[in-house]
Amino acid sequence: MTSDPERPDLRETGLDSEDVFRGRLLHVKRDTVRLPDGSEATREYIVHPGAVMIMPRLPDGKLLFERQFRYPHQRVFIEFPAGKIDAGEDALATAKRELVEETGYTAARWAYVATMHPLITYSTEHIAIYTADELAYVGARLDPGEFVETFAASLEEALGWLDRGEVTDAKTMLGLLLLARGAAALRRA
Amino acid sequence: MTSDPERPDLRETGLDSEDVFRGRLLHVKRDTVRLPDGSEATREYIVHPGAVMIMPRLPDGKLLFERQFRYPHQRVFIEFPAGKIDAGEDALATAKRELVEETGYTAARWAYVATMHPLITYSTEHIAIYTADELAYVGARLDPGEFVETFAASLEEALGWLDRGEVTDAKTMLGLLLLARGAAALRRA
Repeated sequence: MTSDPERPDLRETGLDSEDVFRGRLLHVKRDTVRLPDGSEATREYIVHPGAVMIMPRLPDGKLLFERQFRYPHQRVFIEFPAGKIDAGEDALATAKRELVEETGYTAARWAYVATMHPLITYSTEHIAIYTADELAYVGARLDPGEFVETFAASLEEALGWLDRGEVTDAKTMLGLLLLARGAAALRRA
Repeated sequence: MTSDPERPDLRETGLDSEDVFRGRLLHVKRDTVRLPDGSEATREYIVHPGAVMIMPRLPDGKLLFERQFRYPHQRVFIEFPAGKIDAGEDALATAKRELVEETGYTAARWAYVATMHPLITYSTEHIAIYTADELAYVGARLDPGEFVETFAASLEEALGWLDRGEVTDAKTMLGLLLLARGAAALRRA
């Protein structure tokens, strides 16, 4: 057993919880917790509904990426398409919605790859990762105020960006490395 | 050129910035920005000093991991050792400090691997990733209130956890896949 979530010697118990900020995007909570040794501590964290990332593959094997300005970092990042899960929405439905909204493509074949937690120290966010194949272009439907550029590149090209530090977005790095590992496993088989 | 940070067609310009929450851990800002089409929008994000992650390798090739309870997710995660950069601290100095504090090991050989941004949508955090080799045990110095269990496992074993969804922490997944890719590159050479 690699991880027992019931481990009482490591567990923290919530004693009190309050909303300290409720913005348009961020919902911040502050809880008082009891530590395993009986002492108290404060935990501050973002409550997030979860998100999806899509790795769309064109018939020629190239992947679809986006360039988007990310304000916290004051620069453009290369990313796989991604988006937040709406209340009550199924993760795969989010993935289908975000793919067509942001890139203009629908996909006939979808596969779940993995789930990752981007920042376990202070966010409840999880990201479900999918591949999307058999794409058909139907036209993008970007929301007003969304500025996203879509472009295609091969996995090898994108791994070159990763090796040179030109792709640093965690979810995108992870997706590329999972695809590379899958491809390597296929070559070994 | 894969990413031009000056892309004016994607750039958002800050008009106004305010602190909306300053806690013990989290510092939340809300900025008003001008979008490329001239309209205005709100951006809320966490200001973070940055962090490091260490992939410590024992003489027998096994890696050191930690089990730690992560309150936002109400469960224990398997992770590589990591920690926040103190004000004015060099990232490698943080890595050396965190490794001995959390695991009790010092390392004679360090190598920078990559930098990743865990959550570009709402945090300025970056994580610098290092390998640590030629370890010597000198005894852990956990801070009061820190409850961390250290254990060793092979890369193959840890990749098995990743494949089975038992390791979902983004930084740890990424580190394992970067090591696997390095190992695969060595086997091909």
